[in-house]
Amino acid sequence: MPETSEQEFNQQRLQEVNEALGSGMFVYVRKLLHNLPAYDLALILESSTAKSRPVLWQLIEPDNQGEVLEELSEEVRKGILKSMRPEKVAAVAEGMDVDDLAEVLRTLPDSVYREVLNSMDSQDRARVETALSFDEDTAGGIMNTDTITLRPDVTVDVVLRYLRLKGTLPEATDSFYVVDRHDRFIGVVSLSALVTAKTEVVVSNLIDAEVEAIAADMPETDVAQLFERYDWLSAPVVDEEGHLLGRITIDDVIDIIREDAEHSMMSMAGLDDEADTFAPVIKSTSQRSIWLGVNLITALFAVAVSSQFEELLSILPILAILNSLVPSMGGVAGNQTLTLVIRGIALGHVGDSNARSLLYKELAVGFLNGLIWAVLIASFVALWKQDLMLGGVIAFAMLMNLTVAGLAGVVIPLLLKKLSIDPALAGSVILTTITDVVGIFAFLGTATLLLQ
Amino acid sequence: MPETSEQEFNQQRLQEVNEALGSGMFVYVRKLLHNLPAYDLALILESSTAKSRPVLWQLIEPDNQGEVLEELSEEVRKGILKSMRPEKVAAVAEGMDVDDLAEVLRTLPDSVYREVLNSMDSQDRARVETALSFDEDTAGGIMNTDTITLRPDVTVDVVLRYLRLKGTLPEATDSFYVVDRHDRFIGVVSLSALVTAKTEVVVSNLIDAEVEAIAADMPETDVAQLFERYDWLSAPVVDEEGHLLGRITIDDVIDIIREDAEHSMMSMAGLDDEADTFAPVIKSTSQRSIWLGVNLITALFAVAVSSQFEELLSILPILAILNSLVPSMGGVAGNQTLTLVIRGIALGHVGDSNARSLLYKELAVGFLNGLIWAVLIASFVALWKQDLMLGGVIAFAMLMNLTVAGLAGVVIPLLLKKLSIDPALAGSVILTTITDVVGIFAFLGTATLLLQ
Repeated sequence: MPETSEQEFNQQRLQEVNEALGSGMFVYVRKLLHNLPAYDLALILESSTAKSRPVLWQLIEPDNQGEVLEELSEEVRKGILKSMRPEKVAAVAEGMDVDDLAEVLRTLPDSVYREVLNSMDSQDRARVETALSFDEDTAGGIMNTDTITLRPDVTVDVVLRYLRLKGTLPEATDSFYVVDRHDRFIGVVSLSALVTAKTEVVVSNLIDAEVEAIAADMPETDVAQLFERYDWLSAPVVDEEGHLLGRITIDDVIDIIREDAEHSMMSMAGLDDEADTFAPVIKSTSQRSIWLGVNLITALFAVAVSSQFEELLSILPILAILNSLVPSMGGVAGNQTLTLVIRGIALGHVGDSNARSLLYKELAVGFLNGLIWAVLIASFVALWKQDLMLGGVIAFAMLMNLTVAGLAGVVIPLLLKKLSIDPALAGSVILTTITDVVGIFAFLGTATLLLQ
Repeated sequence: MPETSEQEFNQQRLQEVNEALGSGMFVYVRKLLHNLPAYDLALILESSTAKSRPVLWQLIEPDNQGEVLEELSEEVRKGILKSMRPEKVAAVAEGMDVDDLAEVLRTLPDSVYREVLNSMDSQDRARVETALSFDEDTAGGIMNTDTITLRPDVTVDVVLRYLRLKGTLPEATDSFYVVDRHDRFIGVVSLSALVTAKTEVVVSNLIDAEVEAIAADMPETDVAQLFERYDWLSAPVVDEEGHLLGRITIDDVIDIIREDAEHSMMSMAGLDDEADTFAPVIKSTSQRSIWLGVNLITALFAVAVSSQFEELLSILPILAILNSLVPSMGGVAGNQTLTLVIRGIALGHVGDSNARSLLYKELAVGFLNGLIWAVLIASFVALWKQDLMLGGVIAFAMLMNLTVAGLAGVVIPLLLKKLSIDPALAGSVILTTITDVVGIFAFLGTATLLLQ
């Protein structure tokens, strides 16, 4: 993972901006930011401390602010919107795509939200209100309304003349949607089918049968899967009666894919997937303390189990010294299985149909790895402490805990999913509690029976 | 995270396929697989046990096998290729995209590789050999060669007539590349600019100044960032002298984004990001045992530290019981910071320019959370064991370890990155070793001073 030239370049620019900002050279910073694409401006804001963001924001051209807001992650965006007056938000909102604007509006306090909506013209307001009427994690919530529609009975020649008259197409237009007179969706005609067809061909003959319309209430994860399955660049969204509502473009789908993939990693550490790296200290502290509290409770389970063996531990302090080994290995092995299963669930590879074969496999892997490490650690302990029995005790505990870890790594996430609890968030805590408790109990319990 | 209808549907189909396969109804399975898109066939293969994959593979239409290979993850693909004879591989290779074919060839043993290359016609072979000459993680390694080129001086009318003559365009064509007579890249003309322009306009006037050519040796992560920055759907790839070599399309970029995002999560559990969920038991066991071995070594560090306090532990067994608390909390807190920083590095938010402010922030967060949990756990212990001093000892250790955890969570990944070691792979092990050792030493060391 060596640094790429892009990363290096970004860091250098960031340094330059921050130094200029630090010395109060605002005019220079404004100049530095002037011609940057929205993506880069968002990158700079995300990489800056919470304190300097409002200052940087003031130095970005108002005309670009809408696009920058679109690119920002939710938490950073919220912080910036909070620092803006409602009229300002309304002004910035003007240039935004409907789907992004709806996302912004959802995060605003009610009074500001109303004020922004009221300041928009009626057509734009109607569009945004449609987008807002859908859940933000559905097709309707991420769609845009800038579609180009065609009638089925016109010829290619007519379409081409119409396009020339229009002069420009909405961004990322790769296809047109054919609708009837009631705006009901009939099919998709790709731009490339249009330019390769003879001019006298009728539009209805160019419809691509592979592209289906997406229902407005389809969850966004399903939308992403359809895009990946068919390598779409855009797709139409329809309501229950089949009326065309808008289109989803690949850039929105990329955001979904990235968020889904990041979600698991962040959740497993008890972090929000939109967590702001440079959030204020107090905010970060309170966000993290919840997770630490949950973990303290589970750690106290392990303490409770150990405390049952207080007498044994005072007689044989070597047990106290070795007590962390078996739980630690069980936790690592269990988390490997858990991570694999969580990814498998997210990719759609793991479910009811193959849960059993996966369980058998992971049990076998856990048992085999348990054997390997049982033998190794037992030999080590037996040699170190010249105590064969002690080696046997730790070997048994290791074998048992790693097998349980394999079992727990498969069962816990699948069970949580059935209960509609996010396995990435809750799985690791539950698993670690189990491998801690089983590990300590197996080790100290066997020791009680065999070593006293 | 409720199950979506797509996931449910996939699982049902998978069940049907597996049941039919189990009862030997091969003709029926073939029928079930017959009309599925390559993406779905790949999904079924990925979700099946390693044992049933070769059987399923035989039941997929040979004409579809190339596309399915393109969609498979590396490990699953390798397993299938191993079961095929070289002539078969060559036959399947015929319909594949150059970039995917090059990826497949890279995983083949040398003899098979040669045989496949020899069976191709000379033009295709030349294309694949070009792709193979680039590193697989660079623009050259992921590009395709199916570009459509235009001369700068022709009119839109001529281009449109040329396209109608061609009849079809390569998949996902959203733009054409303008080249001079030596095949040197001049610029990009989008399909939408072409259809909205007047027919007498000359191609050179339609060039989109925003799209730059990508150097063939640019790392793929940089390529993905450029695509995200400019919302490209495709981009041209050129050699050092500016000759057009091919193009990269958004579907390849999506794969990069997904892999990058998954990479961190899988690496943090010591798993390969292409790890096969349903790999054979022996293979999984040996892949995981390496990581477990590394963790055993680090766990032995903790054991070594504890063993310095053997006498103390036998006098005060309550210390043995509480000994896991402080390391556990330190590990959790440290991993939160580590995860945040690893994601920050991957997204390009964290680097030299802001490492210091991030360090101060995380130190403060660690210290504050240390204070909170020190007070709580000290009160708990003081009440439980009626021992104020013991409470004080654990409070001090907690505060110290959580502050160290914040420090380590920032410093370790940044240091590893400087050393070109993947922070996602090595970070967590190193961090946990530090929080274990510091936690135990702080707790038992302070106890030695204050409680004896």
